Amino acid sequence: MTKPQLEFFYEFASTYSYLSAMRIEALAEAAGVEIAWRPFLLGPIFKAQGWTTSPFNLYPAKGRYMVRDIERIAAARGLSFKLPDPFPAQGLHAARLALAGLDADWTPAFTKAVYCAEFQRGANIAEPDVLAACLREVGADPASAIEAAASQPIKDQLRANTDAAIRREMFGAPTFATADGELFWGDDRLDCAIEWARTAAA
Amino acid sequence: MTKPQLEFFYEFASTYSYLSAMRIEALAEAAGVEIAWRPFLLGPIFKAQGWTTSPFNLYPAKGRYMVRDIERIAAARGLSFKLPDPFPAQGLHAARLALAGLDADWTPAFTKAVYCAEFQRGANIAEPDVLAACLREVGADPASAIEAAASQPIKDQLRANTDAAIRREMFGAPTFATADGELFWGDDRLDCAIEWARTAAA
Repeated sequence: MTKPQLEFFYEFASTYSYLSAMRIEALAEAAGVEIAWRPFLLGPIFKAQGWTTSPFNLYPAKGRYMVRDIERIAAARGLSFKLPDPFPAQGLHAARLALAGLDADWTPAFTKAVYCAEFQRGANIAEPDVLAACLREVGADPASAIEAAASQPIKDQLRANTDAAIRREMFGAPTFATADGELFWGDDRLDCAIEWARTAAA
Repeated sequence: MTKPQLEFFYEFASTYSYLSAMRIEALAEAAGVEIAWRPFLLGPIFKAQGWTTSPFNLYPAKGRYMVRDIERIAAARGLSFKLPDPFPAQGLHAARLALAGLDADWTPAFTKAVYCAEFQRGANIAEPDVLAACLREVGADPASAIEAAASQPIKDQLRANTDAAIRREMFGAPTFATADGELFWGDDRLDCAIEWARTAAA
């Protein structure tokens, strides 16, 4: 029997996506749910709303709250948290690389490596050296991964993920999408999303 | 020994505040935490951010998601949910009435009655008849409550609550504030807020 699937739409600049990426595999495994990793870009979605940067920069009180909220949650989960500078990071190349890893199956490990570089060590994930180190960390060959990430099929795939997010009315990250059309937005909805995917398919 | 206190800042137009109002007493009771009911107005806070209405109206995809999110949560808690028209409601008079009930201790019951009228039956809580019915429902005398709600001390108290929310950098509702200065935003943070209040005071 095929496992029920849950689509995990994440943006590399997104702090709450970091929280979900670090725990989604264990939760999905325990529930017998398969995760489809869907890196996408929030930029076009925010731009369509008239935003030129993260809402955490547009609304500074919300941004300060977000940092404290994530510090508390990360601490409770044994994770550290540091906001990188600049924030939000440009996650385009990280997202294309994550897509390039799907066939060889290093996408989850690479995604977590990038989030740890970004939100634990404060690295700028727009820098090629940072991304190359993440690729090496997960056993991928940087040269061939970077070449694949620059190919037209991968560019098209990232655009398709972002277009799917727009079409399905996503407005933030992480967003979890079930096969029967439900959306769950935010790390605090991850458990419900997995439970929905599990029981809807049962 | 005095119980640790948690301040519950809520806005009568807020859908997620409805969810919290319906469960905060049982959770606080179980944890030995005292709730300070703090009705306030989000309007001035939204206006300072350049918003003229609810973010759920400004960003329709977010609004449609919110309705579905609350439908799912309400169903799981045995509650019903209906978005009133107009949304958001003008909650000024409900907030002043809630403050007028603090001395006689009907504020929690009245708050829940208003939220049920608004988000279960879709009533317009700006209408005096709707509010009078809520007052009668909780055993308060409508005439004297309405007179008290129109008094200067109550008007000042609502302004003070809203000013405190602004000073403490709140940007949405519900927001839970602990004695040691932590903020927790959203119904999904209520359990954490109560736990924080309980352990910080221990």
